[in-house]
Amino acid sequence: MSRAIAIIGGTGPQGMGLALRWARAGEAVIIGSRDAARAQQAADSIRERVGSQAQVSGMENSAAAAATDLHALTVPFEGAAALLKQLKPAFRPGSVLIDTTVPLAASVGGRASRMLGVWQGSAAQQTAELVPKGVSVVAAFQNVSAEVLNGDDEVDCDVIVCSDDPNATQIAIELAAKIPRIRAIDGGKLENARIVEQITALLIGLNIRHKGHGGIRITGFADSVYKSA
Amino acid sequence: MSRAIAIIGGTGPQGMGLALRWARAGEAVIIGSRDAARAQQAADSIRERVGSQAQVSGMENSAAAAATDLHALTVPFEGAAALLKQLKPAFRPGSVLIDTTVPLAASVGGRASRMLGVWQGSAAQQTAELVPKGVSVVAAFQNVSAEVLNGDDEVDCDVIVCSDDPNATQIAIELAAKIPRIRAIDGGKLENARIVEQITALLIGLNIRHKGHGGIRITGFADSVYKSA
Repeated sequence: MSRAIAIIGGTGPQGMGLALRWARAGEAVIIGSRDAARAQQAADSIRERVGSQAQVSGMENSAAAAATDLHALTVPFEGAAALLKQLKPAFRPGSVLIDTTVPLAASVGGRASRMLGVWQGSAAQQTAELVPKGVSVVAAFQNVSAEVLNGDDEVDCDVIVCSDDPNATQIAIELAAKIPRIRAIDGGKLENARIVEQITALLIGLNIRHKGHGGIRITGFADSVYKSA
Repeated sequence: MSRAIAIIGGTGPQGMGLALRWARAGEAVIIGSRDAARAQQAADSIRERVGSQAQVSGMENSAAAAATDLHALTVPFEGAAALLKQLKPAFRPGSVLIDTTVPLAASVGGRASRMLGVWQGSAAQQTAELVPKGVSVVAAFQNVSAEVLNGDDEVDCDVIVCSDDPNATQIAIELAAKIPRIRAIDGGKLENARIVEQITALLIGLNIRHKGHGGIRITGFADSVYKSA
C-alpha cells in the first residue's frame, strides 16, 4: 500500500494510536488537526517513538485530506459532521474514508457507556451522507482501545470492518491486519456499523466496572475468515 | 444450586441447548412448552442424550413456571410478551428470570441480522416491565449459538450478564460458568442488554457471510473478572 493515510482529527487518543501503529508498520501517515502546528508536534512525537525512518507528517485537516485519497476519521463524534462538511471540497472522488467514530452519549455530556441515537443508524452512516459522491466510507477500529493502541503491547482485539464498497472493506482489512495481533473480519454492509459502534459503549462500561482495556474477539469461524499480519 | 430451572418456551433450539448443557452439569431442568406432551418428549430426548441420571422433566409453561423460582425465557421474541402476561400468576415474588431473547427483525418477517427497536430499549427491559413486582430479570446467553449448545463441543463464547439485581446476576453467572469453556462476565445494569442483544444480530450476519457459528470473547481484563467452571 503506497498511498499515505490522512488521519483527520488525528491528535486525539484514537488518531495518535492509529498513527503510531501504522507508522511502525511502515505506512506513510499524515496527521490532520485544526491547527497545523499542533499536527506537526503530534507527528514529531510519533517520529520520536517510531524512529527517524517513520513516514509521518502533520497538516491542517483540509490540507491533510487534500494530500491523499485514503483517510481515517478519528474526531470525537460531536465534531464529525461539521468537520466533514468543511472538508467536502478536499475529498477527491475515488477516495476511501475509514470512520472510527462512535456516537457515545458523552458527546452531549452523558455517559460514555451509553449511546446517542443517530437518525441514519450509526455514525458511519451519517458520515456516508456527508462525504461527496464517489467517496467510499468504511467503518472500522471503533472497538480497539486507544490506550492499548498508544502503548507498545500487541492488540488483543478483532476489527470488524463494515462497508458497502468491497474495495474499501479490503483496504481497511489490510490496514487493520498491519497492527500486531489485530485480526480483521469482514462485517458486511455499512449498516452493520450501528452494532459495532455500540460494542464500544459496552466495552467502556466494562472498563469502568472491571478496570481494564476491553476488546472483543469473534469466535467460531475458519482461520481463513480472519486477516492478520 | 439446588432449585430447578424452568426453561419457559424451552422446546426451541436455544431452550433445548441450555437444557442439554445444564442437565449435563447436574442441574434439575424443567422444560416448559405450550403443549405438555411436547415438553415431555423434549425432556425424554435430553435424558436420552445425557443419561438416566439426568434430572429433566417437561410441563406446560405455566406449570413449569409455578414449579420453581428460577426461570429462563427462551421463546422467540414475537411470542415473549404474550407469554409473560399469561404466566404472570405463576411467577412468585423473589423469582429470578433469565431472559435470553433477542428482538431480531426476523420476528416480523425481516432479516435475522437486523434488529427491531423495542420501546423499552431491549427485549430484557420489556420483560422486566411485564413480570410481576419482586421478580428479578437478568439478561444472558443471547450470544451463545444454539447450534453449538445443542452439540457436544465446548462452547467458545463469553456470556455477558446484565441485571439491576446483583443476586440475579450472580445466579446467571454461576449457571453460565457450568457450561464447558463458557466464561461469564458481569455486564452491569439491565439496560446494557440492549447492546448485548444486538451482538446476536451481528453474529447471525457473520454466520451467513462466513459460514460458521459465531461467538464473542471479551478481552483485556484480569482473569478474576471472568467466571468459568
